[in-house]
Order: sequence, then structure tokens, then C-alpha cells
Amino acid sequence: MTQDQTLAAPDATTRPVVAMFLYPGMTMLDLVGPLETLSQMTDVHLVGLTTDELISDSNLPVRPTVAIADAPTDVDVLFVPGGEGTAEAMRNPQILQFLADRGARARYVTSVCTGSLILGAAGLLRGYKATSHWSTTHLLSHFGAEPTAGRVVVDRNRITGGGVTAGIDFGLTLLAEMLGEPAARLSQLMLEYDPQPPFDSGSPATAHPDHVAAVRHFVEPLNQQIIEHLHAVSVSS
Amino acid sequence: MTQDQTLAAPDATTRPVVAMFLYPGMTMLDLVGPLETLSQMTDVHLVGLTTDELISDSNLPVRPTVAIADAPTDVDVLFVPGGEGTAEAMRNPQILQFLADRGARARYVTSVCTGSLILGAAGLLRGYKATSHWSTTHLLSHFGAEPTAGRVVVDRNRITGGGVTAGIDFGLTLLAEMLGEPAARLSQLMLEYDPQPPFDSGSPATAHPDHVAAVRHFVEPLNQQIIEHLHAVSVSS
Repeated sequence: MTQDQTLAAPDATTRPVVAMFLYPGMTMLDLVGPLETLSQMTDVHLVGLTTDELISDSNLPVRPTVAIADAPTDVDVLFVPGGEGTAEAMRNPQILQFLADRGARARYVTSVCTGSLILGAAGLLRGYKATSHWSTTHLLSHFGAEPTAGRVVVDRNRITGGGVTAGIDFGLTLLAEMLGEPAARLSQLMLEYDPQPPFDSGSPATAHPDHVAAVRHFVEPLNQQIIEHLHAVSVSS
Repeated sequence: MTQDQTLAAPDATTRPVVAMFLYPGMTMLDLVGPLETLSQMTDVHLVGLTTDELISDSNLPVRPTVAIADAPTDVDVLFVPGGEGTAEAMRNPQILQFLADRGARARYVTSVCTGSLILGAAGLLRGYKATSHWSTTHLLSHFGAEPTAGRVVVDRNRITGGGVTAGIDFGLTLLAEMLGEPAARLSQLMLEYDPQPPFDSGSPATAHPDHVAAVRHFVEPLNQQIIEHLHAVSVSS
């Protein structure tokens, strides 16, 4: 593939079909990082349980454009963001059924942050390496996945990103996988993704121990909800 | 300030008041990067011309939570994202009047990407260094600003970020300025902002020349709209 062939976005008949699942309490940046990297060159469907407006973690009201009942039957990419609404999403059989169904046939089954725990609850990560937000990755073992540290973890057709901002690295990785490296490089330039973090506090390895403890403390209620859900499921099954 | 003092978010009476202006055709990531860095520790108002739903560049429907008529009169931070809707926003006197009014008293007048051109149109960047998406920064001179390359450009109380993803670096810089470096470091860890771009194509200095040309070609219609608007304004005044 020459550089020239990738400068124009693929035409409508060849654009990969991407289903991104939206739910209340999702982290907006988990969704929007991948969305911006992919939206110019793919056919993105913003899928919700319904098309009712929902509120994200940062209190931004957003609206899915298609309900699961009307979502494409076959998708190239199934994507799930993370967020404080993760445990509630995991408790909804309609959501898990939708994800299990599309995920069974998708070319790529993907997530960012705690979205991987929802994929796990839908049974889509058994036997796969996967990652999540650094403070929750260990919980993936409850779903038969192999918790793996990494910014973007690729195991066969499962591609999972780390916490929140990892979605940008994830999106570019996925775009290169589907449409070639030049397409991803073009997207990166359009988004001026030349990161220059003003501090070096982006991972538990570099952050102050007090901050690591503070984030763990913040995330603890979500982790507890997930563990309680697992107990409830194992008792009822 | 000890680490401990910053682990809890400031209480409601001391949280900085942030007004983020939403408009149709804005780039979602321009908004959501800063929103996620700031939302846990500040009082964010998502302001629109009205509270009607609007569509972002990536076709995500979002809704401002407050109309300009009801927005806080005094804000600590005025923020404007960029996007393909920039020229249209610049043509709306109600928007420019709102920004000029709040910007005159705000502690910080800020933007990401082409949002700086909207600030410029509102007369808020005369005599200030400022930046924008790399493909449009030169246009800032039409508004009396000094076009300045940089990921985050700080000139007195004007803080402008580069293209799209620069909003994350911008948000952390602003948070440190307002609430101290430990607060920004905590936010960075929560967002796992430890970027590992899979390619080195994030700036025109490192990208393939064909990709630089392609982005310039893509952005040209927006730049033309802005220049036409400037001519119309100078003819009518």
C-alpha cells in the first residue's frame, strides 16, 4: 500500500463497521479517545441499551444513536469503554447478551479501561490475555482472562487498552491493524498526538505512593461492587 | 502544601468554577480531554447557546447543561474547544459577546485546538502569545495574537493548547496552576496518562510529508471560511 492510497478515507462499502457500546457512568474519555482516532475512517455506531440520553462520569449528557435491538448484526469491531458504571452494566443481562452475540462474530473484540471487565462478564475473555485500568487489572482473573500489564494488550483478536487515556494508543493500534500503518499515522497527525505530559505521574511505577494509595481508595467501591456481583452470579448459577 | 492536602478534591465552596463552551461541530476530544482532567476537582459548567442537543465532529450527540443566558456570571476558567464548527461559532454575535463578557473577568481564558480562533474573534487574544492546531496557528495573527508553536502556550492568564490531544496536557497544566502540582499528578494517575504512541507521527516535524499535505488539504476549507469571515467583518465595520 502506498502512502497515497491511504490519504483518502476508505469508501463507504469498505469502511470497517465499529460498534461502540455506551452506558450510564462510562468514562467519556474512554469512549472519545478511540472514537476520534477511528471516526474519520470507519463506520461507527454508537449503541446503547436504548437511544435515551445518558450521563457520563463527568456529567456530560450524551445520546446513543442506535439501540441494541437495531444495532448492526455483524460488526468488524466491538468496543466497550470503562467507568464507574461498569458494575451496573455487568449486572444487565440484555447488555451481556448483546456483547456476547456481537463479540462471537466480530473481527475484533476490544475495550479500554474497565470495559474489559464487562467483556469478561459477557464471557468474551476466557483464555485471553487482557488489561484494564491499572487499579483493576487483577480482577480480570475472575473472568478466566490472564491479567496483563500493558498500554495496549493484543491477544489474537482481543485488543484491550489500559486506563482512560490509553484509548488513544489503543485506537491508533487498532486502526493500523485494520487499515494499515499509514492510516494510523495520518489519524495521529490530524489529532496532533505528540504527547508532552507536564508531569511523570501516569502510572503507579512513577507516581507518588500517596497518590497510588488515593486512586486505589477511590476505585475500591467499584472493585467491591464487581466482586459482589461475581459472588451473586456464582451463588445463583 | 503536603501531598495529603491534595488527595481529597477541594470542597464545594473552594472548587474553581469552569465554563466550557459547547457548539455544533466541535471536536469531542478537544472538550473531553480537559473535562476529564478537571471534572473531579472543579465545578464544571457545560455551556451552550441553548441546552438543545448538538452534534459533535464525530457524530456524537451531546447536550450542554446550561444556556449562556443562565451561565455563571463570574468564572475562574473560560474554555473553548476547537473543531470544524469553529467558523460558524465565530460568526455568531451572541457567542462572541458571551465569551468577551466572561473572558473579561475570568482568572484564566483558555482553549484547545482552533478554539483559540474563537477566543481571538471575541477579542480576547490581542497582544497575547497563543497556539492552535498546527495547521491553523498562523491565522491567529489576524486577531492580533502572536502565533506561537507549542503543546501548551501560557502568556499571563491566557492558556492555549495545540491540536486535539493537547487538551490533556493543557488540562493538567491548568490544574497544577490552579490547585497545585500534586492535584495534577493525582489526576494524571487516575487517567493513567502514561502515553505510548505506537507511531511517531504526531507533529508535522515527524510525520510523512504526504500526511502533512493531506491534513493541510483537509483543513483548508475551514481556514478559508475563517479568512472569508475576517474579510466580511472588516468590510462591514
